[in-house]
Amino acid sequence: MGESRGVAMLVGAGDAIGAAVARRFASGGYTICICRRDPTKSQALVDELRAKGHNIHAFSVDARQEAEVQKLFAGVERDIGPIEICLFNAGSNVNKPLLETTEKLFFKAWELACYAGFLVGREAARVMLPRRCGTILFTGATASIRGSKGFVAFSSAKFGLRALAQAMARELGPKNIHVVHLIIDAGVDSEAIHQRMKAARGIEASEIPPDSLTKTSSIAEAYWFAHQQSRDGWTHELDLRPAVEKW
Amino acid sequence: MGESRGVAMLVGAGDAIGAAVARRFASGGYTICICRRDPTKSQALVDELRAKGHNIHAFSVDARQEAEVQKLFAGVERDIGPIEICLFNAGSNVNKPLLETTEKLFFKAWELACYAGFLVGREAARVMLPRRCGTILFTGATASIRGSKGFVAFSSAKFGLRALAQAMARELGPKNIHVVHLIIDAGVDSEAIHQRMKAARGIEASEIPPDSLTKTSSIAEAYWFAHQQSRDGWTHELDLRPAVEKW
Amino acid sequence: MGESRGVAMLVGAGDAIGAAVARRFASGGYTICICRRDPTKSQALVDELRAKGHNIHAFSVDARQEAEVQKLFAGVERDIGPIEICLFNAGSNVNKPLLETTEKLFFKAWELACYAGFLVGREAARVMLPRRCGTILFTGATASIRGSKGFVAFSSAKFGLRALAQAMARELGPKNIHVVHLIIDAGVDSEAIHQRMKAARGIEASEIPPDSLTKTSSIAEAYWFAHQQSRDGWTHELDLRPAVEKW
Amino acid sequence: MGESRGVAMLVGAGDAIGAAVARRFASGGYTICICRRDPTKSQALVDELRAKGHNIHAFSVDARQEAEVQKLFAGVERDIGPIEICLFNAGSNVNKPLLETTEKLFFKAWELACYAGFLVGREAARVMLPRRCGTILFTGATASIRGSKGFVAFSSAKFGLRALAQAMARELGPKNIHVVHLIIDAGVDSEAIHQRMKAARGIEASEIPPDSLTKTSSIAEAYWFAHQQSRDGWTHELDLRPAVEKW
Repeated sequence: MGESRGVAMLVGAGDAIGAAVARRFASGGYTICICRRDPTKSQALVDELRAKGHNIHAFSVDARQEAEVQKLFAGVERDIGPIEICLFNAGSNVNKPLLETTEKLFFKAWELACYAGFLVGREAARVMLPRRCGTILFTGATASIRGSKGFVAFSSAKFGLRALAQAMARELGPKNIHVVHLIIDAGVDSEAIHQRMKAARGIEASEIPPDSLTKTSSIAEAYWFAHQQSRDGWTHELDLRPAVEKW
Repeated sequence: MGESRGVAMLVGAGDAIGAAVARRFASGGYTICICRRDPTKSQALVDELRAKGHNIHAFSVDARQEAEVQKLFAGVERDIGPIEICLFNAGSNVNKPLLETTEKLFFKAWELACYAGFLVGREAARVMLPRRCGTILFTGATASIRGSKGFVAFSSAKFGLRALAQAMARELGPKNIHVVHLIIDAGVDSEAIHQRMKAARGIEASEIPPDSLTKTSSIAEAYWFAHQQSRDGWTHELDLRPAVEKW
Repeated sequence: MGESRGVAMLVGAGDAIGAAVARRFASGGYTICICRRDPTKSQALVDELRAKGHNIHAFSVDARQEAEVQKLFAGVERDIGPIEICLFNAGSNVNKPLLETTEKLFFKAWELACYAGFLVGREAARVMLPRRCGTILFTGATASIRGSKGFVAFSSAKFGLRALAQAMARELGPKNIHVVHLIIDAGVDSEAIHQRMKAARGIEASEIPPDSLTKTSSIAEAYWFAHQQSRDGWTHELDLRPAVEKW
Repeated sequence: MGESRGVAMLVGAGDAIGAAVARRFASGGYTICICRRDPTKSQALVDELRAKGHNIHAFSVDARQEAEVQKLFAGVERDIGPIEICLFNAGSNVNKPLLETTEKLFFKAWELACYAGFLVGREAARVMLPRRCGTILFTGATASIRGSKGFVAFSSAKFGLRALAQAMARELGPKNIHVVHLIIDAGVDSEAIHQRMKAARGIEASEIPPDSLTKTSSIAEAYWFAHQQSRDGWTHELDLRPAVEKW
């Protein structure tokens, strides 16, 4: 495998946004560590990127477990290389009326979208701070800035993640760690959404109006842009939505 | 004791904001249920208000425990009367650098300021919805709208509570439940802050510039105002700070 | 006429919000100066309030003319009494596609909703500052916080007014002048809107769902609340909308 | 001179941001039309870019004059080529206490930073809409989102410009015109700021901490990024500040 500029650590990285960010940062010369609960699901991506000569490793992690997260970061730093980029991308949309939102659902939404973000962001900062170098990326959503009807659990977790990103950005910026919060105010073009649209409304993927969902490659490009910025001009928050979106 | 207009349920109600809201809503004719972990601490307030002829009851609750919260609401509805107002006021400010923010501290900040707010808000909605009548009040802070350096845990929790309030307001408003989020962008004039200012900076209470801390009675008045609004014009969010505050 | 607590100066005060604020502050003991381009239109209100024993005077002013505004403030201070409250309520909603927004329309929207607000707010501050006492009230709208399609001119003006209110609040607060920006995120229950709804959609006033428009008395009550606040806890911004509103 | 991909029209484009954006979009293959009141001031830039083989033309315009703006757009479309990008960059920071803010100053701040933005943005939309293609860029500032003490005039104008950008983005997005509002929450590294810092505080340019001012090239890069986005994922607002900035 070729030489690397450093490690891009992608946590909560699935086949949609995670894979696209992996492709973008691999092209940019980074060694990719793709981390999710079941790493065998990333095997196709690993094969694809290795076939192109890129460095990529898949890891198993439950990002809600402090010990697992700490072990993961320690292992990557020891075995793969210095982590220069860390993306936290976990989080699972839920839409329920208040009275049907169980305490378990409320807790689980927060644990995955916010608490895991704290665990991952903190460990990323821990390894980056002594080097005074790094970029930490958080995936936000419409629910990060708007508590809509039916989104008590999800928006509460995503607001919490946004606060985390802001407070980290203010603390870590002067120490040269760049923290970015990307608000994806859109449906993300992915297998998962295609299946939901078919199940919920009988819409075939081929019937979805072109460019009405945000492509994962566009999201990856936004992260790449932010990472490339020089320290005299950092973006801490930006939005992303299709041209045709109502907002 | 005199007749009551209904019950004002104050959860996470201590000797500062909690007591002031109790006095204000008692004056307005409501039966007060003041709920905190150790209800014996509210005895002086109970004695004070009863001496004035008001109805007040103190309850023990750990608002982070679903079963306790549900039992509390059921008991008050059965034994005291219909809950018309519910204030959620718990939450504990913490200021720590990111790397010193333990997972326990992050969890506890959220559990108290956000998760308990969900449990309390949901049970309040559950008893209010069939009557299509009620006001639910959430205490916010500067940290509810700004993730400042050192406030990773607290602002993450308070942002989460604000999202909860917004999503509840949007869902419950058309069903005639009024949800209010009050952003107290100020130090609150209380024994606790006096002690902190003395410990941290050697400032005696008598040396604090007049009106530089927000009085708990002013906070209570804001909640009373919001509760009194007619349903054609509801305030869902308002701020509160001293005239002299920098913001 | 009875004794007065001071003058409430209402600029851009018509038969809807202006008249309601006049009634509320007259009840609170203030002498009302109601100011609009054609003061004869306020005669019925003047008669009504005088019949109830209140002090009220109607003045003519084009609030977009600096000399007229200055003359008005000087005259009221000299002839009527010290101005303690000043409401700026002018502004006219316009909804046009961008290409149909003439430069004249853009200018006029700003001149009335924002520039006049500056002229009025500045003169109010000028007379209040030496006394270190006063409340300045600005009427905002949905367009104050959201630039919606079709509202290039109106939202640009209303955003500008909000900035003015914020900058004034920060400068004048420590000098004991309370500046309030009220966001009315609603249709206002008034003759004007009834006529528009009939013209545009054939809806009779009697068919409008109850409490779906915000009553002018509710708006007046919000202003009264803010004015009554003690200086340890001032609200600088609050919203107002019907329970049934989508937002 | 080489072939061009289209015209990048830069209005209110001086030697700082304007020149940097000219360099970036010239490198990207666009023909540059740089427009300011005195175009002779752009001669050095014109010479520099032409020496590198780029297409660039300097025009005189007072962007506050509708007729001049319309004539400029007509002339460029006729003589140079189709306008694909339009940057509006005018606006002049002013810091004055409220009572020293003359009506002339308030008007002039708005006329330059907001009204001219409307005139330019509208003409850009007019030529772009029939082609359903184009990017319109607006330069914002800290004052675009915060009305600070002393910035009554400037923040009122910049809030107004932000509303304009939002309303245009919502109307024009579905017609494939991408409107971007860039919030530069920073001092911009330029001759002008160096001179101000020397005059006000005796600080030599060589003493300014590295990367504490945002470089114009970083601003240009942010605009280039936004312009390059595909229509499934557009950024409508982003911020930019140095790593070391307090915010």
